[in-house]
Amino acid sequence: MTPENDPLPLLLKFLRFPTISTQAEHAEDLRQCAGWLSTLLQSIGLHSEVLPTAGQPVVLAHTPRDTAKRTVLIYGHYDVQPVDPIELWETPPFEPTLRNDRIYARGSTDNKGQILAHILGVRETIAHTGTTPVNVIFLIEGEEEIGSPSLDAFLREHRDDLACDVICISDNGMVSDFHPTLSYAMRGIAAMEVRVKGPSVDLHSGVYGGAVMNPATAAARLVASLHHDDGRVAISGFYDTVRPLADWERAASAASPISDADLLAQTGVTELFGEAGYSATERIGARPTAEVNGIGGGYQGEGTKTVLPASAFFKLTFRLVPRMEPEKILDLAEAHLRAHCPAGVTIEIERGHSGLPYFSDPMSADGQAAQRALERVFGLKPSLYREGGSIPILTTFKEVLGADALLPALASPDCAAHSPNENFPVRNFETGIMLNQALLEEFAKVPRGVHGYRGDVPNLDRASRTA
Amino acid sequence: MTPENDPLPLLLKFLRFPTISTQAEHAEDLRQCAGWLSTLLQSIGLHSEVLPTAGQPVVLAHTPRDTAKRTVLIYGHYDVQPVDPIELWETPPFEPTLRNDRIYARGSTDNKGQILAHILGVRETIAHTGTTPVNVIFLIEGEEEIGSPSLDAFLREHRDDLACDVICISDNGMVSDFHPTLSYAMRGIAAMEVRVKGPSVDLHSGVYGGAVMNPATAAARLVASLHHDDGRVAISGFYDTVRPLADWERAASAASPISDADLLAQTGVTELFGEAGYSATERIGARPTAEVNGIGGGYQGEGTKTVLPASAFFKLTFRLVPRMEPEKILDLAEAHLRAHCPAGVTIEIERGHSGLPYFSDPMSADGQAAQRALERVFGLKPSLYREGGSIPILTTFKEVLGADALLPALASPDCAAHSPNENFPVRNFETGIMLNQALLEEFAKVPRGVHGYRGDVPNLDRASRTA
Repeated sequence: MTPENDPLPLLLKFLRFPTISTQAEHAEDLRQCAGWLSTLLQSIGLHSEVLPTAGQPVVLAHTPRDTAKRTVLIYGHYDVQPVDPIELWETPPFEPTLRNDRIYARGSTDNKGQILAHILGVRETIAHTGTTPVNVIFLIEGEEEIGSPSLDAFLREHRDDLACDVICISDNGMVSDFHPTLSYAMRGIAAMEVRVKGPSVDLHSGVYGGAVMNPATAAARLVASLHHDDGRVAISGFYDTVRPLADWERAASAASPISDADLLAQTGVTELFGEAGYSATERIGARPTAEVNGIGGGYQGEGTKTVLPASAFFKLTFRLVPRMEPEKILDLAEAHLRAHCPAGVTIEIERGHSGLPYFSDPMSADGQAAQRALERVFGLKPSLYREGGSIPILTTFKEVLGADALLPALASPDCAAHSPNENFPVRNFETGIMLNQALLEEFAKVPRGVHGYRGDVPNLDRASRTA
Repeated sequence: MTPENDPLPLLLKFLRFPTISTQAEHAEDLRQCAGWLSTLLQSIGLHSEVLPTAGQPVVLAHTPRDTAKRTVLIYGHYDVQPVDPIELWETPPFEPTLRNDRIYARGSTDNKGQILAHILGVRETIAHTGTTPVNVIFLIEGEEEIGSPSLDAFLREHRDDLACDVICISDNGMVSDFHPTLSYAMRGIAAMEVRVKGPSVDLHSGVYGGAVMNPATAAARLVASLHHDDGRVAISGFYDTVRPLADWERAASAASPISDADLLAQTGVTELFGEAGYSATERIGARPTAEVNGIGGGYQGEGTKTVLPASAFFKLTFRLVPRMEPEKILDLAEAHLRAHCPAGVTIEIERGHSGLPYFSDPMSADGQAAQRALERVFGLKPSLYREGGSIPILTTFKEVLGADALLPALASPDCAAHSPNENFPVRNFETGIMLNQALLEEFAKVPRGVHGYRGDVPNLDRASRTA
């Protein structure tokens, strides 16, 4: 191996491509980066191609197909976020710099460092054993940061090439510094906007105030009606399909190294608040929510304007956990809002995007394999973590390929992904290379035909997806 | 009398001055108009001067002082609102046009037509009797449409010249078409803005939602806490000082020709709503309110942005009725909001402007004189009307001159004051000239030393005013 093929120089080379997918002027950078990546994958013995999509190309690579082996699909992306605000970067975002044992560059953690660790892990395995214990497919796209608009069609078109037993993704964060973490669930989402309409125009609040329901007051009353004082969502039927947390989940949550003090420091609030009976990590990952993302009505400027506004609005997103169906939740919310709408105003409801919750059982055979690999490499039992956000592509993978995704994290909590001075600790990079080797070995131990998904989350089987 | 001194040609001449006080380029127009007005007042036998202020000049005129007579001060203004949107005017705003028996021009109702009717009423009285039954003072300012910033100092400086027994103002609307109306109360006002603060920055509503109190939700809960479901304000102590409505007031309200259908048509709401136990006109004029003039927080654009906002705000104004003190009400509101503030957020409260409620007893000797004058001229008992809005200068008059203001209306409900195609029915103008003559005769019948104010509204005696 020549020095320029050492892990760190390769990562620095990868990071020099300014692959900002949302900026059209970087299309050639994306194309060159995909080509470079495909050549690298070929150089370690994989069959690799750069395949076109309606948008940026996909790098698709695989080891020789051995039908006697299980198949692991490793997903990642070579595109990155924009660099604004550029003036806050200590060193240029596309001139990767090593300091404090971290690599500073846009994309260092998200996702170039993490996907390259997996690629180099496979290289190590092949170098030491001449083969891989499982078939490996790399699917590395160039549009993750803009919402993967071409991926759905790509998966359907290449369904046969992508057939696999399990999917592995490292595009997520450890719960605390260098603490092994297996994320196994993401919340779903359902969005709606509500417009509360009253008078035909803004009225003088002196001349008419008192005789007319104020739409801003009505909007506030509707928003206030969504929660009980103890933090529970007050929509009738909202929790009907929600599974209670399993004992092992409560134990995993209780063992989480994320402290309330961490959350206070991260958010800047004076005290945490949430649904009674659950810890903060459970509230974030394992319980559904109703959040106001925006509210507005009437005068927004400085000082006073004595209007009684003609209308007001609020935007809601519900975060969903397994067995909650987005359209059903929006139905329940709409019924709640219509039942609670004060006299004298009317409401118009517009539904927004939605996505199913995702759950990949970490106690499945593959889940336990991933846990073993994490423990081998980090020397600690991994935290099992339910994330609060949503990754829609996971349900697409499940729907099209029928395979579950396991998410062993390589990002540090202070990696500054999407922010200035994004960085990736060298230790995480090196550990990621080892983790990949351990993962392939452990996945190989799972009997063929065993899928991770235990089938206890009915709505994940549904093929329905909403825009 | 020459034809150009007939009432209608005089009004058309008055209306041709583009006296927009908020636009600096019209300063000369305002000066010329004040001069023309003063000359007119001199021509009918009054002593008249154009007096400087820090802003636009004031026209101050008076009949010869006869200490045996009572003195009536008639207030009005010669400045007008801007004309935007100019494209909606059917004829140019400063080229007065007669059609449908109405005079169309900016200022035709507000206030040139109404104050000129009073001037020409005095001319008629002098022409027929050689004198006036009461001393008359005209105080006609040029800054009413910009909030009368110079009037307070002017009143204090000219306090002796302005000494009077009663003040008469026609700058308000009839309750319905050509229905005699005596307005006798205006609500006070107290404003505050509340900022609800939570996280230090907007958070990802997936990553943190559920564990952090959402400031938009907290703002909504605070706003919702301000009212009971039946429309009553829920702030403890809010109504403590409010007088029950007198029987004659409830009778006057019940006899009001303003129907709920009128209010529905004017506001465009589907149904009226307000405090249980009161009619719509009582809710507007005689009961205090808490109104949200603006609310905002989080994402305001199109579509969805999954933020948990760092803060939210709402702007409140309270409309006050006699015996409510603005600062005391703001104290009660602040205590209420602090007591209801949800855990996990903090609130910052900034107090805005405030003004005392105004009440001028229509059953006083002068009030009954005004009622008799209205009934004589219109042939109908006048509606006694409490207005929902606020006119701060009334409390200034009361404070500086110690005199009450009676407000016999000359504007029609569809006069379009402040709007395109402002108009003044010729019938209202001619009736106004007659009304002035009747008012002077009736005010003269009130024994000297009798003031309109019966002293049952303690906080109107207080000299305190807040900015």
